[in-house]
Amino acid sequence: MRGLETILVAYSEIALKSRPVRITLERRLAAQIRNMLTRKGHARVEVKRRFGRLYVEGITASEAKPLASVFGVANVMPSMRTKPDLQSVLGLTVEIATERIGEGQSFAIRPKVVGQHPYSSRDLAVEAGSAVLGALSGNGVHVDLSEPDVTLHIEVRDRDAFVYTEVLKGFGGLPYGSQGRLISLFSGGIDSPVAAWLMMKRGAEVLPLFMDQRPWVGESYIERAELACRTIAEYVPEAGFGLHTAPMGEVMSRIMEASEPKLRCVLCKRSMYRIATSFAEEQEALGIVTGESLGQVASQTLDNLFVLDSATSIPVLRPNIGLDKVEIEDIARRVGTYAVTAHRVEGCTVVPDMVTTKARIDQVRELEEELDLVDLCSDAVRGITFKDIDLEN
Amino acid sequence: MRGLETILVAYSEIALKSRPVRITLERRLAAQIRNMLTRKGHARVEVKRRFGRLYVEGITASEAKPLASVFGVANVMPSMRTKPDLQSVLGLTVEIATERIGEGQSFAIRPKVVGQHPYSSRDLAVEAGSAVLGALSGNGVHVDLSEPDVTLHIEVRDRDAFVYTEVLKGFGGLPYGSQGRLISLFSGGIDSPVAAWLMMKRGAEVLPLFMDQRPWVGESYIERAELACRTIAEYVPEAGFGLHTAPMGEVMSRIMEASEPKLRCVLCKRSMYRIATSFAEEQEALGIVTGESLGQVASQTLDNLFVLDSATSIPVLRPNIGLDKVEIEDIARRVGTYAVTAHRVEGCTVVPDMVTTKARIDQVRELEEELDLVDLCSDAVRGITFKDIDLEN
Repeated sequence: MRGLETILVAYSEIALKSRPVRITLERRLAAQIRNMLTRKGHARVEVKRRFGRLYVEGITASEAKPLASVFGVANVMPSMRTKPDLQSVLGLTVEIATERIGEGQSFAIRPKVVGQHPYSSRDLAVEAGSAVLGALSGNGVHVDLSEPDVTLHIEVRDRDAFVYTEVLKGFGGLPYGSQGRLISLFSGGIDSPVAAWLMMKRGAEVLPLFMDQRPWVGESYIERAELACRTIAEYVPEAGFGLHTAPMGEVMSRIMEASEPKLRCVLCKRSMYRIATSFAEEQEALGIVTGESLGQVASQTLDNLFVLDSATSIPVLRPNIGLDKVEIEDIARRVGTYAVTAHRVEGCTVVPDMVTTKARIDQVRELEEELDLVDLCSDAVRGITFKDIDLEN
Repeated sequence: MRGLETILVAYSEIALKSRPVRITLERRLAAQIRNMLTRKGHARVEVKRRFGRLYVEGITASEAKPLASVFGVANVMPSMRTKPDLQSVLGLTVEIATERIGEGQSFAIRPKVVGQHPYSSRDLAVEAGSAVLGALSGNGVHVDLSEPDVTLHIEVRDRDAFVYTEVLKGFGGLPYGSQGRLISLFSGGIDSPVAAWLMMKRGAEVLPLFMDQRPWVGESYIERAELACRTIAEYVPEAGFGLHTAPMGEVMSRIMEASEPKLRCVLCKRSMYRIATSFAEEQEALGIVTGESLGQVASQTLDNLFVLDSATSIPVLRPNIGLDKVEIEDIARRVGTYAVTAHRVEGCTVVPDMVTTKARIDQVRELEEELDLVDLCSDAVRGITFKDIDLEN
């Protein structure tokens, strides 16, 4: 074929930023695309920044799919590139049309001309349409502008022209790691992977922290957390992503001794916040991300959130707080975690018959002191281990 | 017609709750439906709770639309109700079919049989289908199960049967006010009404608090905030919703004297948090809701969120934190605030050329003390006024 295989990448929100911010984010996005392709085994890749687009070369169309999982990317268009003179553009368009439009199928031309060229978008559509018809109408190929079988996109930009027929939707957002680091309270249920993913999409680097509550919960919890972690790892361009695990069994055992069983869930959650906060300080992370949704379960009342927030000194980000269960499940399906995390695990054996919906901070603090929970949490932080998701395979 | 006009209301998340929680929420939802209809001028309305559904009587199908804006409602079905014996059901179905299926149009029967009845869903579909065809096939009326012009839903529940052809989608969520009270930092831009609405949807009662920064911003800001407030008032079933306004001009004037212009936005936002926190205490609200989205603008970095959070002692809920600008705009369109809040206002005159993205808490606190901002914020709280959105008209 006469074109050069080029993956065209479009981004949305980054384009709206002021010039210095935009350039920083474009560079970061280009680097993350390179990282993602390196993770996928493509070492010799070139990523060029051109106003409003990135050009990726060194992979084939069928290898372009992981680019749609790089945050910041709006669309991925596996294209053939040529020179922008009309003859080259029409020649390439006819070649691609011949390859991709089947007998009797319909097509449409979608032209986009950016910059100074001796033809308009409209001219291009007319010329390309008749060139394709001239070559293929013998096969029953015809134009259908509303519901074409094949859409031939022709995008002319300055010194390059691109022809493509496929657009892979990305997830938008900002490049991974461009907005600082967060610790995710990561149980591997439906909510926490969605919350972690939403903040990753907004450009945060996220370290998933799983609380190992054995022997008070079963083995299946760890397996589920690792599977969920592996699923969201697909969105992390950089190497070295994995699951951090804090041993929390001792803390749980002590909580079981509390004189108020109703407060167990609040004491447990506050311990998790506390462990995550110390881990954040150690890792220079700037906040915690959790999966809470207001009113979803008895422990997620405003009263209880107040008591939870007072166990940490850093921001708690709750991207699910305004979402319904069904909305969270919809996102989980898009992300790919639904199948993993809808997987039922045995219930937590610590949960009492009645959970308080109105914890009182003074009572909670008193119990924590009595049970020496703060010290036990420090032990848990010292015991945190790490499992690299890539190395493991 | 032989049926009784009944609006059938379905809810989703409430149905998943434990029995005592479910009953409380069902009662609250029924009360909020009555309140919403009272606000709309329908005084004599009956709302009955039946397992899994609410039955609303005393309004017509054309008056049912506001029910879809009551949070907790999944679907609104303006129906005709009859007895569940087959003869009554078929008779009503044919009457409604005759009224709503035009000449040559297609239809489908969608049956749902709950409880003990001498026929199954399948029997009902077959019987109803042939009854309608018997009555109308002379007019060219025919069955189309995949894309019917008219769908006849027949829902049989215990002692009642309902026939309806229209389903109005609600927004889901939990009944307004069932989850406690929040103060919304409400500018009336794109983000803050969406954030307030998302928390209202999750059952929070929300008091919008607008910061009147005149003379540092123009009159148009207040007008925009009032319009946005009126738009979200459509989702509030209870009377008495309106806009609270805190006079913040003095605070702004003092911030202009700060030796570090780069910190103005952080000082301003912290003052807003502080005023909202005092107002929350006064109003027994349990948190603040804000429109921040990570990395959307220079002031919404993790570093700055840390500095903002340390200006308040109560939870800050940020339902937009994980959303892209385009996602927030999509919600604004669904809510109805987009048209209002996309309306441009003159920029804030206080914003410096460079805004810090990494505020340092010690420096910020020093400046606040120097400028006596905490006292000025107390004055602002004392000056808060209220405008009732309903009374105003």
